[in-house]
Amino acid sequence: MTITITAFESSPDRGRGLARDMRVRWALEEVGQPYDVRLLSFKAMKEPAHLAVHPFGQIPTYEGGDLALFESGGIILHIAERYGGLLPDDGNARARAISWMFAALSTVEQPIIEYSTVKLLERDESWYDARLPAVEERVRVRLRQLSARLGSADWLDGAFSAGDLLMVHAVQRLTGSGLLDAFPNLGAYIARAEARPAYKRAFAAQLAVFEAARRS
Amino acid sequence: MTITITAFESSPDRGRGLARDMRVRWALEEVGQPYDVRLLSFKAMKEPAHLAVHPFGQIPTYEGGDLALFESGGIILHIAERYGGLLPDDGNARARAISWMFAALSTVEQPIIEYSTVKLLERDESWYDARLPAVEERVRVRLRQLSARLGSADWLDGAFSAGDLLMVHAVQRLTGSGLLDAFPNLGAYIARAEARPAYKRAFAAQLAVFEAARRS
Repeated sequence: MTITITAFESSPDRGRGLARDMRVRWALEEVGQPYDVRLLSFKAMKEPAHLAVHPFGQIPTYEGGDLALFESGGIILHIAERYGGLLPDDGNARARAISWMFAALSTVEQPIIEYSTVKLLERDESWYDARLPAVEERVRVRLRQLSARLGSADWLDGAFSAGDLLMVHAVQRLTGSGLLDAFPNLGAYIARAEARPAYKRAFAAQLAVFEAARRS
Repeated sequence: MTITITAFESSPDRGRGLARDMRVRWALEEVGQPYDVRLLSFKAMKEPAHLAVHPFGQIPTYEGGDLALFESGGIILHIAERYGGLLPDDGNARARAISWMFAALSTVEQPIIEYSTVKLLERDESWYDARLPAVEERVRVRLRQLSARLGSADWLDGAFSAGDLLMVHAVQRLTGSGLLDAFPNLGAYIARAEARPAYKRAFAAQLAVFEAARRS
């Protein structure tokens, strides 16, 4: 069975690994499964052929055999359930790791996306300076809680899991913002993840797509 | 095994069913499992005893036997995997239903939470009127896509699933905002969910907590 995922033809993050195909590439590398990539233009993402697979017109999608999936969290959970290496064997530990996946995507990433949107779209608005501190504080509250829970551990709950994969990718978006500076254990957590061979292979693969697009 | 969940001692939504314990109550009613509820004050939610179970100091949590979980998505997926009635038996359909759970929480709820936050916290700010339309439009984009995918179907992908449960609860937060008016199929989708006996029992149970708090 060939696994095919979709990704941006030319990623708006310029190959920094922030697009959500990175998560799925990383998960596939962690479990040692090869995959093909179908690149999509912004125009193609909104066309019926892609909307049939992804109702919200985004990347990534996952196709394998007669299964088509959208939404990176759902795709990664499917990969984690099908192949070993991303979830613990013990039932309770597995349920907790899955809760961390949801926590990454809904509780931690939500204010980070809001913060990124403000930085990207509202920088020239008259209210930008007045409003930014409250948005930053919503992010800081979550970072403080995440940092307190992680403490001096390597990963959130025992061995590296799909919960760590999604959490690292959510928090990584803040690299360079200064917001992580107060939480050295979170910086070390990201660095530990980035040092994983699977991460490095996934990062190089998505960067190669961006570099090729730039050359063409 | 007794299942115990946590909920607000006095819900800030005044019993409208928007707090996240409602989702878990609804899921437990759908699968026919009884549960106890431990009520928490806002102060207790930030204390070490609760933070040990929920790193982000929120409700709901789930405790059953030697398993403690946080994050409504993770709790509901655990319930859905353990008991019948919230996920299809077929493996592919099951993976798609789980993708809808993630879509509800990260793709659809994210702009709705941002919209609710703006309505709640920024109404008196000088930028409120100038900024609101862009926030509303981010919500409308998702509603338009969701409405197009749902079409004239009863549920998002075959029979009612945990994906519908989370999607309905995410979109319900817009009831009364006017944003749903342009999408009658989404209004009917919410009404269909609210007519389910399990929904009604869960709604009544959380309302009873609020009414009791008001009387005391």
